[in-house]
Amino acid sequence: MEITLTMPDWAVTELQRLPAVIPSLEDRMAEVIRFSRLNFENGTGGPFAAGVFERNTGRLVVIGVNRVVASNCSSAHAEVMALSLAQKLLGTYDLGGPGMPVYQLVVNWRPCAMCYGAVLWSGIRSLAIAGSGPELEAITGFDEGPIHPEWDKELARRGIELIDSVLTEDALRVYRDFAASGSLVYNSRQGG
Amino acid sequence: MEITLTMPDWAVTELQRLPAVIPSLEDRMAEVIRFSRLNFENGTGGPFAAGVFERNTGRLVVIGVNRVVASNCSSAHAEVMALSLAQKLLGTYDLGGPGMPVYQLVVNWRPCAMCYGAVLWSGIRSLAIAGSGPELEAITGFDEGPIHPEWDKELARRGIELIDSVLTEDALRVYRDFAASGSLVYNSRQGG
Repeated sequence: MEITLTMPDWAVTELQRLPAVIPSLEDRMAEVIRFSRLNFENGTGGPFAAGVFERNTGRLVVIGVNRVVASNCSSAHAEVMALSLAQKLLGTYDLGGPGMPVYQLVVNWRPCAMCYGAVLWSGIRSLAIAGSGPELEAITGFDEGPIHPEWDKELARRGIELIDSVLTEDALRVYRDFAASGSLVYNSRQGG
Repeated sequence: MEITLTMPDWAVTELQRLPAVIPSLEDRMAEVIRFSRLNFENGTGGPFAAGVFERNTGRLVVIGVNRVVASNCSSAHAEVMALSLAQKLLGTYDLGGPGMPVYQLVVNWRPCAMCYGAVLWSGIRSLAIAGSGPELEAITGFDEGPIHPEWDKELARRGIELIDSVLTEDALRVYRDFAASGSLVYNSRQGG
Protein backbone atom coordinates (compact mmCIF):
# COMPACT_ATOMS: atom_id res chain seq x y z
CA MET A 1 0.00 0.00 0.00
CA GLU A 2 2.65 2.48 -0.97
CA ILE A 3 3.90 4.06 -4.18
CA THR A 4 7.62 4.66 -4.73
CA LEU A 5 8.89 6.67 -7.69
CA THR A 6 12.63 6.89 -8.29
CA MET A 7 14.98 8.86 -10.51
CA PRO A 8 17.38 6.94 -12.76
CA ASP A 9 20.97 6.57 -11.54
CA TRP A 10 22.41 8.68 -14.37
CA ALA A 11 20.14 11.59 -13.37
CA VAL A 12 21.21 11.43 -9.73
CA THR A 13 24.85 11.59 -10.88
CA GLU A 14 24.19 14.41 -13.36
CA LEU A 15 22.31 16.43 -10.73
CA GLN A 16 25.29 16.23 -8.38
CA ARG A 17 27.51 17.63 -11.12
CA LEU A 18 25.33 20.67 -11.81
CA PRO A 19 26.19 24.06 -10.32
CA ALA A 20 24.13 25.07 -7.28
CA VAL A 21 22.96 28.21 -9.08
CA ILE A 22 22.07 28.67 -12.77
CA PRO A 23 21.42 32.41 -13.18
CA SER A 24 20.14 32.57 -16.78
CA LEU A 25 16.78 31.13 -17.81
CA GLU A 26 18.21 29.90 -21.11
CA ASP A 27 20.89 27.97 -19.24
CA ARG A 28 18.23 26.44 -16.98
CA MET A 29 16.22 25.36 -20.02
CA ALA A 30 19.35 24.00 -21.71
CA GLU A 31 19.93 21.68 -18.74
CA VAL A 32 16.28 20.56 -18.75
CA ILE A 33 16.50 19.81 -22.47
CA ARG A 34 19.76 17.92 -21.92
CA PHE A 35 18.05 15.78 -19.27
CA SER A 36 15.11 15.13 -21.63
CA ARG A 37 17.54 13.77 -24.22
CA LEU A 38 19.53 11.69 -21.73
CA ASN A 39 16.29 10.16 -20.46
CA PHE A 40 15.26 8.57 -23.73
CA GLU A 41 18.83 7.86 -24.85
CA ASN A 42 19.43 5.93 -21.62
CA GLY A 43 16.13 4.08 -22.04
CA THR A 44 14.86 5.35 -18.68
CA GLY A 45 11.74 7.17 -19.90
CA GLY A 46 10.15 9.48 -22.44
CA PRO A 47 11.88 12.63 -23.78
CA PHE A 48 10.60 14.92 -21.03
CA ALA A 49 12.25 16.73 -18.15
CA ALA A 50 11.29 19.52 -15.76
CA GLY A 51 13.35 21.55 -13.33
CA VAL A 52 12.43 23.52 -10.21
CA PHE A 53 14.52 26.63 -9.55
CA GLU A 54 14.35 29.72 -7.39
CA ARG A 55 13.26 32.16 -10.07
CA ASN A 56 15.13 35.22 -8.88
CA THR A 57 18.47 33.63 -7.98
CA GLY A 58 18.54 30.57 -10.23
CA ARG A 59 19.25 28.25 -7.31
CA LEU A 60 18.56 24.69 -8.51
CA VAL A 61 16.20 22.57 -6.41
CA VAL A 62 15.88 19.50 -8.65
CA ILE A 63 15.34 18.28 -12.21
CA GLY A 64 12.88 15.42 -12.72
CA VAL A 65 12.39 13.17 -15.74
CA ASN A 66 9.54 11.08 -17.12
CA ARG A 67 9.37 7.68 -15.38
CA VAL A 68 6.03 6.24 -16.57
CA VAL A 69 7.22 2.94 -18.01
CA ALA A 70 10.04 2.32 -15.51
CA SER A 71 7.71 2.95 -12.56
CA ASN A 72 4.55 1.31 -13.95
CA CYS A 73 2.88 4.63 -13.14
CA SER A 74 1.08 6.68 -15.77
CA SER A 75 1.21 9.77 -13.53
CA ALA A 76 5.03 9.76 -13.31
CA HIS A 77 5.43 12.55 -15.87
CA ALA A 78 8.49 14.79 -15.59
CA GLU A 79 6.54 17.69 -14.04
CA VAL A 80 4.97 15.48 -11.35
CA MET A 81 8.39 13.99 -10.56
CA ALA A 82 10.06 17.41 -10.35
CA LEU A 83 7.31 19.08 -8.30
CA SER A 84 6.99 16.13 -5.92
CA LEU A 85 10.75 15.85 -5.41
CA ALA A 86 11.00 19.61 -4.82
CA GLN A 87 8.16 19.49 -2.28
CA LYS A 88 9.85 16.60 -0.50
CA LEU A 89 13.24 18.35 -0.46
CA LEU A 90 11.69 21.61 0.78
CA GLY A 91 9.34 19.88 3.24
CA THR A 92 6.08 21.40 2.03
CA TYR A 93 3.12 20.60 -0.24
CA ASP A 94 2.91 24.30 -1.21
CA LEU A 95 5.93 25.80 -2.99
CA GLY A 96 4.14 29.16 -2.86
CA GLY A 97 3.60 29.17 0.90
CA PRO A 98 4.30 32.11 3.22
CA GLY A 99 7.95 33.16 3.35
CA MET A 100 8.99 31.02 0.37
CA PRO A 101 11.02 32.46 -2.51
CA VAL A 102 9.35 32.47 -5.94
CA TYR A 103 9.77 28.99 -7.41
CA GLN A 104 9.87 28.43 -11.15
CA LEU A 105 9.16 25.26 -13.12
CA VAL A 106 11.16 24.95 -16.37
CA VAL A 107 9.77 22.33 -18.81
CA ASN A 108 10.72 21.28 -22.33
CA TRP A 109 7.15 21.90 -23.63
CA ARG A 110 3.72 22.99 -22.42
CA PRO A 111 2.54 20.57 -19.71
CA CYS A 112 -0.06 17.97 -20.71
CA ALA A 113 -3.64 18.12 -19.42
CA MET A 114 -2.68 16.35 -16.17
CA CYS A 115 0.55 18.23 -15.51
CA TYR A 116 -1.12 21.57 -16.18
CA GLY A 117 -3.31 20.87 -13.16
CA ALA A 118 -0.31 19.61 -11.16
CA VAL A 119 1.40 22.97 -11.80
CA LEU A 120 -1.63 24.85 -10.48
CA TRP A 121 -1.70 22.89 -7.22
CA SER A 122 2.05 22.92 -6.60
CA GLY A 123 2.45 26.53 -5.50
CA ILE A 124 4.84 27.22 -8.39
CA ARG A 125 4.69 30.95 -9.25
CA SER A 126 6.48 30.94 -12.61
CA LEU A 127 6.24 28.49 -15.53
CA ALA A 128 8.86 28.63 -18.28
CA ILE A 129 8.33 26.39 -21.33
CA ALA A 130 10.17 25.71 -24.57
CA GLY A 131 6.98 25.96 -26.62
CA SER A 132 3.22 25.47 -26.56
CA GLY A 133 2.23 24.63 -30.13
CA PRO A 134 1.17 21.39 -31.83
CA GLU A 135 4.74 20.47 -32.81
CA LEU A 136 5.31 18.12 -29.87
CA GLU A 137 2.26 15.97 -30.68
CA ALA A 138 2.89 16.15 -34.42
CA ILE A 139 6.51 15.03 -34.15
CA THR A 140 6.31 12.40 -31.42
CA GLY A 141 2.74 11.10 -31.50
CA PHE A 142 2.26 11.67 -27.77
CA ASP A 143 -1.30 12.69 -26.81
CA GLU A 144 -1.17 15.81 -24.61
CA GLY A 145 -4.87 15.67 -23.81
CA PRO A 146 -7.57 18.34 -23.96
CA ILE A 147 -5.89 21.59 -22.93
CA HIS A 148 -8.21 24.26 -21.55
CA PRO A 149 -8.80 26.94 -24.23
CA GLU A 150 -7.88 29.65 -21.68
CA TRP A 151 -4.95 27.75 -20.16
CA ASP A 152 -2.67 30.79 -20.28
CA LYS A 153 -5.27 33.16 -18.81
CA GLU A 154 -6.08 30.63 -16.08
CA LEU A 155 -2.41 30.63 -15.06
CA ALA A 156 -2.48 34.44 -14.84
CA ARG A 157 -5.71 34.34 -12.81
CA ARG A 158 -3.89 32.23 -10.23
CA GLY A 159 -0.85 34.50 -10.11
CA ILE A 160 1.39 32.17 -12.11
CA GLU A 161 3.79 33.88 -14.56
CA LEU A 162 4.12 32.23 -18.00
CA ILE A 163 7.29 32.49 -20.11
CA ASP A 164 6.90 30.75 -23.47
CA SER A 165 9.30 29.87 -26.33
CA VAL A 166 12.58 29.42 -24.47
CA LEU A 167 15.04 27.47 -26.69
CA THR A 168 12.21 26.12 -28.82
CA GLU A 169 14.41 24.74 -31.58
CA ASP A 170 16.65 22.89 -29.12
CA ALA A 171 13.60 21.21 -27.59
CA LEU A 172 12.21 20.25 -30.99
CA ARG A 173 15.53 18.68 -31.98
CA VAL A 174 15.19 16.22 -29.09
CA TYR A 175 11.63 15.32 -30.16
CA ARG A 176 12.78 14.71 -33.73
CA ASP A 177 15.64 12.52 -32.56
CA PHE A 178 13.26 10.66 -30.24
CA ALA A 179 10.82 10.06 -33.12
CA ALA A 180 13.65 8.84 -35.36
CA SER A 181 14.84 6.43 -32.66
CA GLY A 182 11.69 4.30 -32.84
CA SER A 183 11.28 4.46 -29.05
CA LEU A 184 8.00 3.50 -27.37
CA VAL A 185 5.14 6.01 -27.48
CA TYR A 186 2.82 4.82 -24.74
CA ASN A 187 -0.43 6.65 -25.16
CA SER A 188 -3.36 5.06 -23.44
CA ARG A 189 -6.80 4.86 -24.99
CA GLN A 190 -7.31 6.81 -28.23
CA GLY A 191 -10.89 5.86 -28.97
CA GLY A 192 -13.68 3.44 -28.24
CA MET B 1 15.86 11.23 -5.10
CA GLU B 2 12.72 9.22 -4.59
CA ILE B 3 9.09 9.91 -3.78
CA THR B 4 7.14 7.62 -1.46
CA LEU B 5 3.39 7.97 -0.99
CA THR B 6 1.65 5.85 1.62
CA MET B 7 -1.90 5.04 2.62
CA PRO B 8 -2.97 5.67 6.22
CA ASP B 9 -3.01 2.66 8.56
CA TRP B 10 -6.79 2.79 9.02
CA ALA B 11 -7.28 2.53 5.26
CA VAL B 12 -5.02 -0.51 4.98
CA THR B 13 -7.06 -2.19 7.72
CA GLU B 14 -10.41 -1.19 6.18
CA LEU B 15 -9.33 -2.45 2.75
CA GLN B 16 -8.51 -5.87 4.21
CA ARG B 17 -12.03 -6.03 5.66
CA LEU B 18 -13.80 -5.30 2.37
CA PRO B 19 -15.25 -8.12 0.27
CA ALA B 20 -13.17 -9.15 -2.73
CA VAL B 21 -16.09 -8.38 -5.05
CA ILE B 22 -18.66 -5.55 -4.84
CA PRO B 23 -21.16 -6.25 -7.62
CA SER B 24 -23.35 -3.11 -7.51
CA LEU B 25 -22.03 0.30 -8.56
CA GLU B 26 -23.97 2.00 -5.76
CA ASP B 27 -22.27 -0.25 -3.22
CA ARG B 28 -18.86 0.56 -4.72
CA MET B 29 -19.62 4.29 -4.46
CA ALA B 30 -20.90 3.87 -0.90
CA GLU B 31 -17.51 2.41 0.11
CA VAL B 32 -15.64 5.21 -1.65
CA ILE B 33 -17.77 7.80 0.13
CA ARG B 34 -17.20 6.02 3.46
CA PHE B 35 -13.41 6.20 2.87
CA SER B 36 -13.71 9.91 1.99
CA ARG B 37 -15.36 10.54 5.37
CA LEU B 38 -12.92 8.39 7.33
CA ASN B 39 -10.01 10.25 5.72
CA PHE B 40 -10.92 13.66 7.07
CA GLU B 41 -12.36 12.34 10.33
CA ASN B 42 -9.06 10.55 11.02
CA GLY B 43 -7.08 13.67 10.10
CA THR B 44 -5.19 11.81 7.36
CA GLY B 45 -6.23 13.95 4.37
CA GLY B 46 -8.98 15.80 2.55
CA PRO B 47 -12.51 14.37 2.07
CA PHE B 48 -11.72 12.54 -1.15
CA ALA B 49 -11.44 8.88 -2.08
CA ALA B 50 -11.31 6.90 -5.31
CA GLY B 51 -11.63 3.19 -5.98
CA VAL B 52 -10.46 1.01 -8.86
CA PHE B 53 -12.70 -1.96 -9.68
CA GLU B 54 -13.17 -4.43 -12.50
CA ARG B 55 -16.27 -2.86 -14.02
CA ASN B 56 -18.04 -6.02 -15.11
CA THR B 57 -17.44 -8.20 -12.05
CA GLY B 58 -17.00 -5.63 -9.30
CA ARG B 59 -13.70 -7.13 -8.18
CA LEU B 60 -12.00 -4.57 -5.95
CA VAL B 61 -8.42 -3.61 -6.82
CA VAL B 62 -7.85 -0.77 -4.34
CA ILE B 63 -9.34 2.38 -2.81
CA GLY B 64 -7.04 5.40 -2.46
CA VAL B 65 -7.50 8.55 -0.40
CA ASN B 66 -6.17 12.11 -0.55
CA ARG B 67 -2.70 12.35 1.05
CA VAL B 68 -1.53 15.84 0.05
CA VAL B 69 -0.73 17.26 3.48
CA ALA B 70 0.51 14.02 5.06
CA SER B 71 2.87 13.36 2.13
CA ASN B 72 3.97 16.96 1.46
CA CYS B 73 2.89 16.26 -2.11
CA SER B 74 0.31 18.40 -3.90
CA SER B 75 -0.20 15.67 -6.52
CA ALA B 76 -1.26 13.04 -3.96
CA HIS B 77 -4.97 13.41 -4.72
CA ALA B 78 -7.20 10.38 -4.19
CA GLU B 79 -7.41 9.54 -7.90
CA VAL B 80 -3.63 9.64 -8.37
CA MET B 81 -3.20 7.45 -5.28
CA ALA B 82 -5.82 4.92 -6.44
CA LEU B 83 -4.62 4.75 -10.05
CA SER B 84 -0.94 4.51 -9.07
CA LEU B 85 -1.61 1.82 -6.46
CA ALA B 86 -3.74 -0.14 -8.94
CA GLN B 87 -1.01 0.09 -11.58
CA LYS B 88 1.56 -1.10 -9.06
CA LEU B 89 -0.63 -4.00 -7.90
CA LEU B 90 -1.41 -5.02 -11.49
CA GLY B 91 2.16 -4.46 -12.72
CA THR B 92 1.37 -2.10 -15.60
CA TYR B 93 1.26 1.62 -16.41
CA ASP B 94 -1.76 1.01 -18.68
CA LEU B 95 -4.91 -0.35 -17.05
CA GLY B 96 -6.44 -0.55 -20.52
CA GLY B 97 -3.70 -2.66 -22.06
CA PRO B 98 -4.26 -5.74 -24.23
CA GLY B 99 -6.01 -8.60 -22.46
CA MET B 100 -6.99 -6.54 -19.42
CA PRO B 101 -10.54 -6.50 -18.09
CA VAL B 102 -12.38 -3.16 -18.20
CA TYR B 103 -11.26 -1.16 -15.16
CA GLN B 104 -13.50 1.45 -13.57
CA LEU B 105 -12.56 4.41 -11.36
CA VAL B 106 -15.22 5.35 -8.79
CA VAL B 107 -14.77 8.84 -7.28
CA ASN B 108 -16.80 10.93 -4.84
CA TRP B 109 -16.97 13.87 -7.30
CA ARG B 110 -15.75 14.92 -10.75
CA PRO B 111 -11.93 14.81 -10.82
CA CYS B 112 -10.10 18.14 -10.60
CA ALA B 113 -8.16 19.57 -13.55
CA MET B 114 -5.08 17.48 -12.72
CA CYS B 115 -6.87 14.23 -11.93
CA TYR B 116 -8.99 14.51 -15.06
CA GLY B 117 -5.75 14.20 -17.04
CA ALA B 118 -4.52 11.41 -14.77
CA VAL B 119 -7.69 9.45 -15.60
CA LEU B 120 -7.05 9.85 -19.33
CA TRP B 121 -3.49 8.50 -19.08
CA SER B 122 -4.29 5.63 -16.72
CA GLY B 123 -6.02 3.30 -19.16
CA ILE B 124 -9.22 3.39 -17.08
CA ARG B 125 -12.19 2.64 -19.37
CA SER B 126 -15.06 3.69 -17.10
CA LEU B 127 -15.40 6.67 -14.76
CA ALA B 128 -18.22 6.73 -12.20
CA ILE B 129 -18.68 9.92 -10.16
CA ALA B 130 -21.06 11.10 -7.46
CA GLY B 131 -21.60 14.44 -9.19
CA SER B 132 -20.04 17.04 -11.45
CA GLY B 133 -21.64 20.35 -10.50
CA PRO B 134 -20.37 23.38 -8.58
CA GLU B 135 -21.57 22.02 -5.21
CA LEU B 136 -18.19 20.61 -4.17
CA GLU B 137 -16.38 23.93 -4.61
CA ALA B 138 -19.27 25.91 -3.16
CA ILE B 139 -19.52 23.80 0.00
CA THR B 140 -15.84 23.12 0.75
CA GLY B 141 -13.93 26.01 -0.82
CA PHE B 142 -11.57 23.64 -2.68
CA ASP B 143 -10.45 24.95 -6.09
CA GLU B 144 -11.02 22.26 -8.72
CA GLY B 145 -9.19 24.20 -11.45
CA PRO B 146 -10.18 25.05 -15.01
CA ILE B 147 -12.14 22.06 -16.30
CA HIS B 148 -12.18 21.66 -20.07
CA PRO B 149 -15.59 22.79 -21.44
CA GLU B 150 -15.90 19.51 -23.36
CA TRP B 151 -14.54 17.30 -20.55
CA ASP B 152 -17.33 14.75 -20.96
CA LYS B 153 -17.05 14.59 -24.75
CA GLU B 154 -13.26 14.28 -24.47
CA LEU B 155 -13.73 11.22 -22.27
CA ALA B 156 -16.03 9.68 -24.90
CA ARG B 157 -13.52 10.48 -27.67
CA ARG B 158 -10.95 8.39 -25.79
CA GLY B 159 -13.33 5.50 -25.25
CA ILE B 160 -13.91 6.21 -21.55
CA GLU B 161 -17.46 5.63 -20.30
CA LEU B 162 -18.86 8.28 -17.91
CA ILE B 163 -21.49 7.49 -15.27
CA ASP B 164 -22.54 10.62 -13.35
CA SER B 165 -24.71 11.27 -10.26
CA VAL B 166 -24.18 8.07 -8.27
CA LEU B 167 -25.21 8.64 -4.62
CA THR B 168 -24.88 12.41 -5.03
CA GLU B 169 -26.59 13.31 -1.76
CA ASP B 170 -24.41 10.92 0.25
CA ALA B 171 -21.28 12.54 -1.21
CA LEU B 172 -22.56 16.04 -0.50
CA ARG B 173 -23.27 15.10 3.12
CA VAL B 174 -19.55 14.36 3.62
CA TYR B 175 -18.57 17.72 2.10
CA ARG B 176 -21.01 19.55 4.38
CA ASP B 177 -19.68 17.74 7.44
CA PHE B 178 -16.11 18.46 6.30
CA ALA B 179 -16.91 22.18 5.92
CA ALA B 180 -18.56 22.26 9.35
CA SER B 181 -15.50 20.60 10.93
CA GLY B 182 -13.23 23.58 10.23
CA SER B 183 -10.60 21.29 8.67
CA LEU B 184 -7.78 22.70 6.55
CA VAL B 185 -8.59 23.67 2.94
CA TYR B 186 -5.17 23.85 1.29
CA ASN B 187 -5.65 25.58 -2.03
CA SER B 188 -2.48 26.94 -3.50
CA ARG B 189 -2.34 30.28 -5.29
CA GLN B 190 -5.66 32.00 -5.87
CA GLY B 191 -4.45 35.20 -7.51
CA GLY B 192 -1.51 37.46 -8.14
